[in-house]
Amino acid sequence: MPFITHDAVRTIAVIGAGTIGASWSAWFLARGLTVRVSDPAPAAPDMVRAYVREAWPALRQLRITEEAVDQALARLSFHASAGEAAQGADFVQENAPERVAVKQAVLKEIDAVVPADRVIASSTSGFGVTEMQAEMRHPERLVVGHPFNPPHLIPLVEVVGGGRSSEEAVQWAIGFYNHVGKRAIHVRKEVPGHIANRLQAALWREALHLVQEGVGSVDDIDAAIAYGPGLRWAIMGPHLTFHLAGGRGGIAHFFDHLGPNVEKWWADLGTPHITPELRDMIARGVEEEIAGRSYESLVEHRDKALLGVLAATRQPLPAEE
Amino acid sequence: MPFITHDAVRTIAVIGAGTIGASWSAWFLARGLTVRVSDPAPAAPDMVRAYVREAWPALRQLRITEEAVDQALARLSFHASAGEAAQGADFVQENAPERVAVKQAVLKEIDAVVPADRVIASSTSGFGVTEMQAEMRHPERLVVGHPFNPPHLIPLVEVVGGGRSSEEAVQWAIGFYNHVGKRAIHVRKEVPGHIANRLQAALWREALHLVQEGVGSVDDIDAAIAYGPGLRWAIMGPHLTFHLAGGRGGIAHFFDHLGPNVEKWWADLGTPHITPELRDMIARGVEEEIAGRSYESLVEHRDKALLGVLAATRQPLPAEE
Repeated sequence: MPFITHDAVRTIAVIGAGTIGASWSAWFLARGLTVRVSDPAPAAPDMVRAYVREAWPALRQLRITEEAVDQALARLSFHASAGEAAQGADFVQENAPERVAVKQAVLKEIDAVVPADRVIASSTSGFGVTEMQAEMRHPERLVVGHPFNPPHLIPLVEVVGGGRSSEEAVQWAIGFYNHVGKRAIHVRKEVPGHIANRLQAALWREALHLVQEGVGSVDDIDAAIAYGPGLRWAIMGPHLTFHLAGGRGGIAHFFDHLGPNVEKWWADLGTPHITPELRDMIARGVEEEIAGRSYESLVEHRDKALLGVLAATRQPLPAEE
Repeated sequence: MPFITHDAVRTIAVIGAGTIGASWSAWFLARGLTVRVSDPAPAAPDMVRAYVREAWPALRQLRITEEAVDQALARLSFHASAGEAAQGADFVQENAPERVAVKQAVLKEIDAVVPADRVIASSTSGFGVTEMQAEMRHPERLVVGHPFNPPHLIPLVEVVGGGRSSEEAVQWAIGFYNHVGKRAIHVRKEVPGHIANRLQAALWREALHLVQEGVGSVDDIDAAIAYGPGLRWAIMGPHLTFHLAGGRGGIAHFFDHLGPNVEKWWADLGTPHITPELRDMIARGVEEEIAGRSYESLVEHRDKALLGVLAATRQPLPAEE
């Protein structure tokens, strides 16, 4: 049975409405869709509405929507259970707590009411699809659709299929996320941390190692990224960056020229253990770095800067020639 | 003997004028300084002048300078040898080819003519200060001042002292780079790759591993950075990013909550070897990613986006409270 077409999707069920679910709700509303939410917390409806209101000016500034927020909120509804919210949904984004038994129970409930030609995606960062789809009647339409926080601002969605997912469901999800303005990538194997969290973890591992060995302060190591390669990584990933660094010979030249250096550096990278001492050392370093600035002021700074970075980088690569 | 004050520095010697030296020249000129260049290549003067002209509109757009380029170029001069260029210099930025014997010879020549109260900095990415200062009469004033390409746009400078460098020279260099508008960090130990290249190498190692294992395409792995964490790394480094991700509990909460996940990911990260097969696999992946776009159009895209990213992120953190 073919899946519903991307264009025909009008209604999204958002199951679990912590900050991830609330942010997904803001994105889908901004794309003109209807959003049906369920969350067991009594405060969830107020929290989600407040989150959407707070997110809206940024979504307008980025020209994701031109709608007034009150008009968009008229398409947002709350339901007593996952099964009720999923009624009539054309696509489901599940954001239940990261406990596999909870995920399985919620997915089973959704699976029972959503027609088999609809895809269900889980925002999980920690679980594989294979273990989550175990009890589903239609496991072939379950995929991971892992966003980056906050989903209404960060374009990346990692799509992963499990042992019983159909290739069609995976491709449908990639196409759908791109259709609604995200940048979906295909994670072709179930590996811990998908892709982006592994890359983040690899970088952070060496950052911790360098602090632990006294090579740099937390502040200076953060600056080494944010005033250095981080500025380029907002524009293009490591391979394309090194391709351009290789000049006209491209990345092949880069390998030939700098490969030996890179392997020398790799051999010297460290593998710290997360001990209470390391945690305290890093926490003290961050305190020095923020030097009394408030949490709110730092978040505000980040979010304001992020809008500027998105505006500067959301332009697609030049057209193919 | 105390070093010259930062304010008193008027004249910079730029020794070695490939693209790094040319870019340093553009930056120092934009800061109103006089620049004396030496390079054995007969084409160097024309190349450097052309580089400065090409860099100038960006430096004006970023409000680093408001001067006309012709006026600035009147402060640029070329000299027959490193020793001649270094005559009368208040600070020396050495960018000779990355061969230690060449570096040692050039530094010895500079050392002989520059008074001992002036600091000499090397742009080297591959050598330690200790081995470069071996033959100097005043080794205490030699440091590494490693920029990120291109130095006239990327703020980061890594300052490293060697076994015979004085702490005063290291602190002077950090202060001077900051004084002229760069973001200098202190690399407290001589380690291969300083700091930023090690962090880049750590991330790229896992990126290569994921391509090699078939977890993602080159294009998708690049997108996992540029549409995900890369957007935040242009704003703040990994520690501060995770501090804010930890909510009000900060990075200590982040460690307690996500530390076990991170260690699980670390245990699964790979260590590829740079073989001809891997190189060719990556080169093919990059070809697919760029899909026929020209080198020039990609460089133009990157440089234009970089100006937007710099404008969005050059705002300092909020004032301390």
